[in-house]
Amino acid sequence: MSRPEQRSLHFNLFIHDTGHHEASWRLPESEPLAHIDVAYHQRLARIAEDAKFDSLFLADSPALWGDPGRRPSGRLEPTVLLTALAVSTSRIGLIATASTSYNEPYNLARRFASLDHVSGGRAGWNIVTTAGDAAARNFGLEGQPTHAERYDRAAEFIEVSTKLWDSWEDDAVVADKDRGVHAEADRVHRFGHVGRHFRVDGPLNVPRSPQAHPLLVQAGSSEDGKDFAARYAEAVFTAQPTLEEGQAFYADVKRRAVAAGRDPEGVKILPGIVPVIGDTEAEARELDAELDRLIQPEYAKLQLATLLGLDPDRFALDEELPSDLPEEDEIEGSKSRYTLIVQLARRERLTVRQLIGRLGGGRGHRTFTGTPVQVADTIQHWFEHGAADGFNIMPAVLPSGLEVFVQRVVPILQERGLFRTEYTGRTLREHYGLPRPANRFASTLVGA
Amino acid sequence: MSRPEQRSLHFNLFIHDTGHHEASWRLPESEPLAHIDVAYHQRLARIAEDAKFDSLFLADSPALWGDPGRRPSGRLEPTVLLTALAVSTSRIGLIATASTSYNEPYNLARRFASLDHVSGGRAGWNIVTTAGDAAARNFGLEGQPTHAERYDRAAEFIEVSTKLWDSWEDDAVVADKDRGVHAEADRVHRFGHVGRHFRVDGPLNVPRSPQAHPLLVQAGSSEDGKDFAARYAEAVFTAQPTLEEGQAFYADVKRRAVAAGRDPEGVKILPGIVPVIGDTEAEARELDAELDRLIQPEYAKLQLATLLGLDPDRFALDEELPSDLPEEDEIEGSKSRYTLIVQLARRERLTVRQLIGRLGGGRGHRTFTGTPVQVADTIQHWFEHGAADGFNIMPAVLPSGLEVFVQRVVPILQERGLFRTEYTGRTLREHYGLPRPANRFASTLVGA
Ligand SMILES: Cc1cc2nc3c(=O)[nH]c(=O)nc-3n(C[C@H](O)[C@H](O)[C@H](O)COP(=O)(O)O)c2cc1C
Ligand SMILES: Cc1cc2nc3c(=O)[nH]c(=O)nc-3n(C[C@H](O)[C@H](O)[C@H](O)COP(=O)(O)O)c2cc1C
Repeated sequence: MSRPEQRSLHFNLFIHDTGHHEASWRLPESEPLAHIDVAYHQRLARIAEDAKFDSLFLADSPALWGDPGRRPSGRLEPTVLLTALAVSTSRIGLIATASTSYNEPYNLARRFASLDHVSGGRAGWNIVTTAGDAAARNFGLEGQPTHAERYDRAAEFIEVSTKLWDSWEDDAVVADKDRGVHAEADRVHRFGHVGRHFRVDGPLNVPRSPQAHPLLVQAGSSEDGKDFAARYAEAVFTAQPTLEEGQAFYADVKRRAVAAGRDPEGVKILPGIVPVIGDTEAEARELDAELDRLIQPEYAKLQLATLLGLDPDRFALDEELPSDLPEEDEIEGSKSRYTLIVQLARRERLTVRQLIGRLGGGRGHRTFTGTPVQVADTIQHWFEHGAADGFNIMPAVLPSGLEVFVQRVVPILQERGLFRTEYTGRTLREHYGLPRPANRFASTLVGA
Repeated sequence: MSRPEQRSLHFNLFIHDTGHHEASWRLPESEPLAHIDVAYHQRLARIAEDAKFDSLFLADSPALWGDPGRRPSGRLEPTVLLTALAVSTSRIGLIATASTSYNEPYNLARRFASLDHVSGGRAGWNIVTTAGDAAARNFGLEGQPTHAERYDRAAEFIEVSTKLWDSWEDDAVVADKDRGVHAEADRVHRFGHVGRHFRVDGPLNVPRSPQAHPLLVQAGSSEDGKDFAARYAEAVFTAQPTLEEGQAFYADVKRRAVAAGRDPEGVKILPGIVPVIGDTEAEARELDAELDRLIQPEYAKLQLATLLGLDPDRFALDEELPSDLPEEDEIEGSKSRYTLIVQLARRERLTVRQLIGRLGGGRGHRTFTGTPVQVADTIQHWFEHGAADGFNIMPAVLPSGLEVFVQRVVPILQERGLFRTEYTGRTLREHYGLPRPANRFASTLVGA
């Protein structure tokens, strides 16, 4: 048992093919078809579970992003892949990204409820609004809805989803064979939602799941994104390049949560970090550099342009970004990512080539480079100085980057009493110390 | 190895909670929470796989059907549940029902491609248009689109889905680390579909899967349904109450397939049968009667009314159906099911109570009641007299009804050389003797 009074770190494993680094697939050790290989993902999940990680996570977009030529692209749909992992693990949480812009609440709420049943209460949903026109054009649209419109739909999407998950009360199913009553019909609710984006009668066709709702995770950091997080999210993934920015973001989201009437402890902030670990600091730096040499700059430039929503011909590899870039409020794609990248480039006066090097490894997430103790120290420092409740661990290369982290950094943090040595809970919510939601439709018990 | 020249039976297991019979959940042996229990489904899948069944199958609708009070209702979403089964089996095919009326092709095609990857080529899709207003009202509509409109959308849905599955050529992924080329970009196609119902740019974000396309299964038997089957389906589930009707249906669908320019062998016809097996014929009949006694007639009357789309107050339990029912062409729900039930009641002059008894066990599917040899004989007779290429096995009670069938009937059919004793193929298509589809976008090799 861990001491409940002590605040504990939370770790989420970000799984992205052979690693978060653009060029990781080109390393001799990397499995070329990892991205469509279930056994590979099962291996990663088991390593993270053996290390007592809270959860693992899959990013997603309903479109092929970028040029399939240059890195693994196209992969298994996250709710499907996580179901496969649910069956081959027993404790680790399973967080799938899914878009509120290109799904229907009924279909998606069902799949998360089903995954929660299959996993015994380990499902989480990374709620994204999906930036970019490519996805929109797979769903009947010419281009993406505006940023504000996407977040407006996202909010109603969550309202509808939580109604669907609440539409079966916990004690609805009685399975009384003698009376021939399987469920008490008055504890199954047809709520009849009618809103600006959705009309959904209900009830859901899945009985209430172990966690009641999947853990709600969010990863947008624009103003709208932070307000959305403050209202709905229970965990927030974020890219914070410096401690100071991390602290400001942390304080900002917690403050917004309080303003929205919530317990700030109910929103866990998890910055992404790319750990690059060596026996010496120099060795760690060499590892980092080796990967950057595998990046193909012309292709990366194209990706950068797509990410920023700008014309690639306006960039030159050995010059800084053009000075007349649009402001964040003119951006309809991923606002916070745009600002983060542009600010990083300006602050450090990086050429496009240098910027690409920085993004190849971390894409704006913070790279923690050093010896195991140095990396553990930095984690502890962020955790104890108001920048993080835990971390989204994004190894540059998989599985090796994960293996090094769990073998060399995790034990240090466990020794310091900062990270669990055994799971104490069964569900994903229990791992994060978050409550099981009450049911809005539950009958009030009069005189009971 | 089976002798390839000999035609072989195909068996699909229809899994529906504790069995196809309305009241099966009330038996002492039945697991009350079977419908949301993965381990229960894994057990069934293994029994069917040990018996060398071609496939198993899950029905589905994106709505809660009927009154949740009276039988298990609400269950796990099929693509999720089948993924869990994919990981715990190795040979049996996995067929999920999914609606073309209430999904987007991009999302659904992805999930089937993903399931096909996870299962190593064992995914099948039972394509349904979903009758009834309840589902429509979970997706922003007041009521269901017309029957014709649903089939029109279904046809375009399949066109788009097959384009998505073809959007990656088989040899697109090269994973050439030295050149830094993961896929040959000119073998990944953005096809830009624009039609009456859908606009989808592509490509899919899943590389081509083992079977290329999941097996396409269909289960509508109206005129539109049969035309649809003839154009697209590779296997057809159907409810045929008598041998003669089965023969007529079989000939009709094969004829339509030929008219559509297809090989009639490429469409397998699988009538549903409910085997009720006893050591003696009398024992089998007693088993049947025992289940019918557990049916709750008032509730069943309500369900019947819903199924027929009629007012329940127009029925009396101990009278025949009213004589002034609408004709099939006035029905916008499930046309063929409507006609089948009404004809059955008229032909045998059944009261509503008697009709309910017949439907409780088979819902219009044929019940094969008798000793193991009698049931095997009837199967062989249908198979050899132009009524079936195989059967959709719908046990009234699960798992016991399946166990009796595989222990007592399957060995007889194997002995007669009518059913495999070992799997000879790896994929679902191989089990059914169906080809892997060619790729419409594959580059023509000039001079190769
Ligand atoms: C760690 C992390 C993971 C993310 N994963 C996804 C993802 O899988 N899919 C996606 O569409 N967006 C993803 N995002 C982007 C955000 O969810 C969000 O859509 C984007 O930042 C735009 O929102 P904003 O303008 O509020 O920042 C991720 C962001 C972070 C920090
Ligand atoms: C064995 C069998 C299984 C079926 N399963 C489903 C199902 O899971 N979901 C569904 O909506 N319809 C299902 N149906 C109904 C048909 O797919 C079809 O939607 C219905 O019969 C209406 O089409 P029709 O008017 O062309 O007959 C099934 C039919 C049969 C014979």
